Amino acid sequence: PRLAQMQTVTLIPGDGIGPEISSAVVKIFQAANAPVSWEERNVTAIKGPGGRWMIPPDAKESMDRSKIGLKGPLKTPIAAGHPSMNLLLRKTFDLYANVRPCISIEGYKTPYTDVDLVTIRENTEGEYSGIEHQIVDGVVQSIKLITENASRRIAEYAFEYARNNQRSSVTAVHKANIMRMSDGLFLRKCREVAESYKDIKFTEMYLDTVCLNMVQDPTQFDVLVMPNLYGDILSDLCAGLIGGLGVTPSGNIGANGVAIFESVHGTAPDIAGLDLANPTALLLSGVMMLRHMGLHDHAHKIQKACFDTIREKKVLTKDLGGNSKCSEFTADICRRVQDLD
Amino acid sequence: PRLAQMQTVTLIPGDGIGPEISSAVVKIFQAANAPVSWEERNVTAIKGPGGRWMIPPDAKESMDRSKIGLKGPLKTPIAAGHPSMNLLLRKTFDLYANVRPCISIEGYKTPYTDVDLVTIRENTEGEYSGIEHQIVDGVVQSIKLITENASRRIAEYAFEYARNNQRSSVTAVHKANIMRMSDGLFLRKCREVAESYKDIKFTEMYLDTVCLNMVQDPTQFDVLVMPNLYGDILSDLCAGLIGGLGVTPSGNIGANGVAIFESVHGTAPDIAGLDLANPTALLLSGVMMLRHMGLHDHAHKIQKACFDTIREKKVLTKDLGGNSKCSEFTADICRRVQDLD
Ligand SMILES: CC(C)[C@H](C(=O)O)[C@@H](O)C(=O)O
Ligand SMILES: CC(C)[C@H](C(=O)O)[C@@H](O)C(=O)O
Repeated sequence: PRLAQMQTVTLIPGDGIGPEISSAVVKIFQAANAPVSWEERNVTAIKGPGGRWMIPPDAKESMDRSKIGLKGPLKTPIAAGHPSMNLLLRKTFDLYANVRPCISIEGYKTPYTDVDLVTIRENTEGEYSGIEHQIVDGVVQSIKLITENASRRIAEYAFEYARNNQRSSVTAVHKANIMRMSDGLFLRKCREVAESYKDIKFTEMYLDTVCLNMVQDPTQFDVLVMPNLYGDILSDLCAGLIGGLGVTPSGNIGANGVAIFESVHGTAPDIAGLDLANPTALLLSGVMMLRHMGLHDHAHKIQKACFDTIREKKVLTKDLGGNSKCSEFTADICRRVQDLD
Repeated sequence: PRLAQMQTVTLIPGDGIGPEISSAVVKIFQAANAPVSWEERNVTAIKGPGGRWMIPPDAKESMDRSKIGLKGPLKTPIAAGHPSMNLLLRKTFDLYANVRPCISIEGYKTPYTDVDLVTIRENTEGEYSGIEHQIVDGVVQSIKLITENASRRIAEYAFEYARNNQRSSVTAVHKANIMRMSDGLFLRKCREVAESYKDIKFTEMYLDTVCLNMVQDPTQFDVLVMPNLYGDILSDLCAGLIGGLGVTPSGNIGANGVAIFESVHGTAPDIAGLDLANPTALLLSGVMMLRHMGLHDHAHKIQKACFDTIREKKVLTKDLGGNSKCSEFTADICRRVQDLD
């Protein structure tokens, strides 16, 4: 594996604690001899021709070439009319599926054990269409847009994911009792796609029922697929079940292998630069990325080392309940990765 | 208190287990000498002039007179175009606020303790507008409608509720980062109303963040106010934290004191008529109703008796972990209510 062909990955360190946790991940990948060569890019949005916000050309160009990105947290822009960078990235590269595996981490105590589920969120339309109007003074409408194509595409992705990851069921999450046409269309496409995946059990559940059941017994769920906003909500809820955004990886997947993996926590400006940040979410996003690239051995090694460090509880960052610095936590994982060689 | 003037309440027993749990509540109210006289009504929707679905005139007339209803579960209609009875009731009586106190019940084990919060859901508009279109083949839109009036009204309700119930904070739940105009309007009204309630702390939080924080530590929340769909989701999620819909009361409040209190669980047709149902959710909804009617002593007595029965764990229905029948559980509460006299 040491002679494997290097693959280029665009690294977007991000803001606040982004650079620290990114360099932690780079070190751990190096210790694991992962055949990845990093191309670091900055993605502060710029105003392009016609005043449209866009990501800087050199970042776009790198992603177009590498097709794979790993991204730290980006600070929320404050300029009026400035889009969320996260949304702009999803849009620029048509990253239509947001995938979040939520798996209980041994040794990291939460009210739940044995959570092992994946939320798959449609990432391009729905309530995120951005179309809003004022009808008359004091009356405003937002439009939720659901298309047959995007619904079929995300349903297909969910079933393919289930099949390729040895998962046995897919649950479509919806409110088609209320939004009969839009969620109805989404649900219909899920049902249609389910027909072609007889090996995967298909169920449907109202979003409110999912939330209720989720906090009562998350172990009943496997793969969940849903429109954009429901995914925004459920993916965060599920992250909470296993310990929060500091330990939850995320991937945004597009067509033809294009993907950006990211930690979805904030930039934590209060601790930025102090060597206190927890790189786990970005590291596990990197592990998802390695699997996406077919580098399963490296993925396994890094994940095992990270989980071993957390389970042993000797070298943990503050948010994980310890007293160690980011660099010490990172070094402990590096040591374990090398021992696994 | 025995000589208190009787107040009429419209009782809608509902379907499935509805009649059993309703008669349990009637018995317990009687044991507590609650000055309530019940007017029982059926609410299967009928087709009125012009083919519009409406609730039967005698039920409408009773509610118009009594202004207060207590309602068991209603079965989901299957006829095409037949509305959800729950939605029809909310609409008919303009019940604009859905209120759900979620308070941990001692003795009923869930992963959480000390939950003590109230969700207040805007009940009339938002994603429940029912306005949907097909733009072209395969492209559908649903309209989320937010108005200044409904937003101000629900915000005012939430702050009044907080003040009248000795609660110290109100959190507005929104996605105004995505739905800038609609959730933006909702949020602006909350901020404006907050100005008049300097005794109540006001905070704002994204829905996804609320969900994440909620499952990590629900004790940080007090009163939460939000648009319709978010309330649908969060109220069920919070019910899950304290043990589910079987123990969670709910009230739908309109203008001028009009209100319908209801259990929000299903009709449980599989156990209907078998004397196995758990009347707790309907009973606690009845307790909310008594408070709404100013009958605080009766409310307190019944609630205490119910919680004592649950805490003692000797006479519990199956869903609560026991072996007793609905009638035995009811009798135990009645006995305690009388002992409290
Ligand atoms: C940053 C924000 C626009 C985003 C969203 O609402 O989708 C975030 O919550 C997420 O889940 O990535
Ligand atoms: C029955 C259904 C229409 C309803 C809703 O979605 O509002 C239910 O979930 C509720 O919360 O009362």
